[in-house]
Amino acid sequence: MEFTAKQIADFIGGTVDGNEQTTVNTFAKIEEGKEGAITFLSNPKYTHYIYDTKASIVLVNEDLQLEKPVTTTLIRVKNAYECVAKLMQMYAQSMPKKTGVDSLAFVSPSAQIGKDVYIGPFAVIGDGVKIGDGTRIYPNVTIYDGCQIGKNVTIHAGAVIGADGFGFAPNTEGYDKIPQLGIVVIEDNVEIGANTCVDRSTMGQTIIHKGVKLDNLIQVAHNCEIGENTVMSAQVGMAGSTKIGAWCMVGGQAGFSGHITIADKTFIGAQSGVISNTKGNGEQLIGAPAIDPKVFFKASAVFKKLPDMYREMAALRKELDELKEKK
Amino acid sequence: MEFTAKQIADFIGGTVDGNEQTTVNTFAKIEEGKEGAITFLSNPKYTHYIYDTKASIVLVNEDLQLEKPVTTTLIRVKNAYECVAKLMQMYAQSMPKKTGVDSLAFVSPSAQIGKDVYIGPFAVIGDGVKIGDGTRIYPNVTIYDGCQIGKNVTIHAGAVIGADGFGFAPNTEGYDKIPQLGIVVIEDNVEIGANTCVDRSTMGQTIIHKGVKLDNLIQVAHNCEIGENTVMSAQVGMAGSTKIGAWCMVGGQAGFSGHITIADKTFIGAQSGVISNTKGNGEQLIGAPAIDPKVFFKASAVFKKLPDMYREMAALRKELDELKEKK
Amino acid sequence: MEFTAKQIADFIGGTVDGNEQTTVNTFAKIEEGKEGAITFLSNPKYTHYIYDTKASIVLVNEDLQLEKPVTTTLIRVKNAYECVAKLMQMYAQSMPKKTGVDSLAFVSPSAQIGKDVYIGPFAVIGDGVKIGDGTRIYPNVTIYDGCQIGKNVTIHAGAVIGADGFGFAPNTEGYDKIPQLGIVVIEDNVEIGANTCVDRSTMGQTIIHKGVKLDNLIQVAHNCEIGENTVMSAQVGMAGSTKIGAWCMVGGQAGFSGHITIADKTFIGAQSGVISNTKGNGEQLIGAPAIDPKVFFKASAVFKKLPDMYREMAALRKELDELKEKK
Repeated sequence: MEFTAKQIADFIGGTVDGNEQTTVNTFAKIEEGKEGAITFLSNPKYTHYIYDTKASIVLVNEDLQLEKPVTTTLIRVKNAYECVAKLMQMYAQSMPKKTGVDSLAFVSPSAQIGKDVYIGPFAVIGDGVKIGDGTRIYPNVTIYDGCQIGKNVTIHAGAVIGADGFGFAPNTEGYDKIPQLGIVVIEDNVEIGANTCVDRSTMGQTIIHKGVKLDNLIQVAHNCEIGENTVMSAQVGMAGSTKIGAWCMVGGQAGFSGHITIADKTFIGAQSGVISNTKGNGEQLIGAPAIDPKVFFKASAVFKKLPDMYREMAALRKELDELKEKK
Repeated sequence: MEFTAKQIADFIGGTVDGNEQTTVNTFAKIEEGKEGAITFLSNPKYTHYIYDTKASIVLVNEDLQLEKPVTTTLIRVKNAYECVAKLMQMYAQSMPKKTGVDSLAFVSPSAQIGKDVYIGPFAVIGDGVKIGDGTRIYPNVTIYDGCQIGKNVTIHAGAVIGADGFGFAPNTEGYDKIPQLGIVVIEDNVEIGANTCVDRSTMGQTIIHKGVKLDNLIQVAHNCEIGENTVMSAQVGMAGSTKIGAWCMVGGQAGFSGHITIADKTFIGAQSGVISNTKGNGEQLIGAPAIDPKVFFKASAVFKKLPDMYREMAALRKELDELKEKK
Repeated sequence: MEFTAKQIADFIGGTVDGNEQTTVNTFAKIEEGKEGAITFLSNPKYTHYIYDTKASIVLVNEDLQLEKPVTTTLIRVKNAYECVAKLMQMYAQSMPKKTGVDSLAFVSPSAQIGKDVYIGPFAVIGDGVKIGDGTRIYPNVTIYDGCQIGKNVTIHAGAVIGADGFGFAPNTEGYDKIPQLGIVVIEDNVEIGANTCVDRSTMGQTIIHKGVKLDNLIQVAHNCEIGENTVMSAQVGMAGSTKIGAWCMVGGQAGFSGHITIADKTFIGAQSGVISNTKGNGEQLIGAPAIDPKVFFKASAVFKKLPDMYREMAALRKELDELKEKK
């Protein structure tokens, strides 16, 4: 599909600065722009690219001041970044989408599959699983028996939903398995990344509430609960029975101890180790054990000087002792 | 299946406090109890739930003192937590289990499959692989050629057993691959979590000894050895040729350097970085590099005060120098 | 296949010390040597094994001094470790290799598959994917639509190439998905470990340059770029748009913030957290935030003493104040 600068400007409410009839049919980063591509300039750090870009159209913020003429056509808008996202969404929606259950998927006869669902090759949908309308299950996903997946959920390739929680009771010779009799419930509009694992609960439910976005290779243990619209970057790990509130943001590789509660709108930095309940909504934490980010970064700066501090302290002790002796 | 309070009390050696004919057919957490469910109360923190729970039966410790009457039927036992685990095991054993090789699995003609084995859809069992009796291989598992899996092993969805160890030798233009000619041996009663990877050895064997329990998304590199009944939480990583003893416990996201030896019954905290041999059995370690947990938590508490300490040290130096000058 | 000591010595340019007609047909570690196996001795720590090994042939460095006679046949070479790697490569090349597209794989009709390619059972090759000559795709791998894989690439089981990058824009009710319209490009001679994820870019390409070796369970986010011959151990995570130079080495479980640039030949220790651009080629970093390794290990040694330092500092303050008062 091709669009003119004028069509695009009308759609997003911008003004054309250049040839209104310039056409584009794809997107590109500004430094990789080529003929027929639309790109955008949002970060001032990249402004210099606008004079050389081969892209046919560049979306820019309306207040952009040019220092010399450009050959590309500009569309001036209030917020270039938001507008390009909007255009990409429109473009993505216009593209044909795979739907239906692929003939190479395995879907249990007792599973209930909604409308307009896509299930890719080699995905496994276990007994009694429920999948809501509009949900997309990519190839090689495994959903164990009894789990419930909402509407408009996306589950990327290799993810495993509903494997046994990790529960064992020691005996004298080894460990007895504690059966994991619960399920996983994933509510509407959730996205689950590739190779992410969400374990079934021991009893009751492991719950991912609506709008949650989980990146790749994340571990959600049995009996966990993740609140609405919380976002987690790749490789985060949650131990069992931990509850995370709504609208939280969790950086990559962070870990949570079991049986703790994280309040709404908590911001957890990458690689943090969170080992206790948070104090209230909106807290920011980083480090392991996790503390206030300002303190963490200041203390980390001093950490480098610890060897010097250690020597200085010994010197202070010696000099002080000498001074006292002189008395 | 339904059981009466009397049947359950007889089975686990408890006494009924309430209606002996109350029946249940499922399990629930005490805060989510509903009619027809049995639950348990073990942690005193949750005692208040017993007065409101909708569960039909609650297993409680025999010494539980009630502050007011309850509507639910109680079964008093020595250890409520152990008893519920026992009941869940009985329940799980009574449920029908999938067995046999699914018609959608790929099993090499040269693989040897034991009795009462389950192999799920889209699992791949390579050439010459041996699988012992009673073992369960969930969907989308891949077992590379030549590996040996013992009896009553459980391997969850997406796990990869026997991929090449990560070995490369630099040359002037890049890296030559060092062929990984060994195998993986997994002994009896091991459980391997979803999407966990156990690499084949360069030569000889990567060995997971009997009774080991590995959670999800764990990396076991080539030539590693994990001793009997050692338990590892999710996302742990072991570099090559490291040996971990028997009955160890390893917290989530911990990492081990290569070519080190960890003694039996070592306890490694979550997110630890273990970079050298341990000193002997029963050691506890946490942090990166890993140290004694008491020291780690005390030092972490002081870490927050490092900026203050740095300032105070400068002040001490200044004041001391002034004092010395006055002499 | 069987080879005599003489044949092997001629092939690798060594001299036989013992029976030239001794034959071997497999490899073993020196401590697990058995009849018919060739092994090697490179690390002096293991020299004592040479007097007891059951291996038929041992490759040793030419300057090895024996303290007593051995029963095994020795082949003396300049560098025993390099020679055994060479022999293993020869052996591996002589072994029959699977080729062709397995009948249980799914390959889109619009994918372009090169010569001598192996694609295992239940691998998924999406629409328009290009795969170069000699590339090996193991079972249960998923390659999303439009990605490009070079020649002689190896992708291990369960890896996911081209899943959506993790991009969402907040609105008042939740998050809008930012469509991920780009692709993944993997150049020649790359190896990708089991269950590793490489996400497609928002626009343009996520690029893994030629010769890169990625271990298992690694996360490469959208718009990342990894330079030629860089090597990463298991469970490393890269956030979006980060560029890593050529010939870098990255230890296991290390993490990189988004939008940063790492110069060539950088050495990043295990579990590091790299949060800013590096200063130039050849830098070494470890810790979180990552710093110079010498400083890190010295400071870590002092970290253990922080509680003592804290007490000592309070003592110094008290004594100094007393001294000042006496004046």
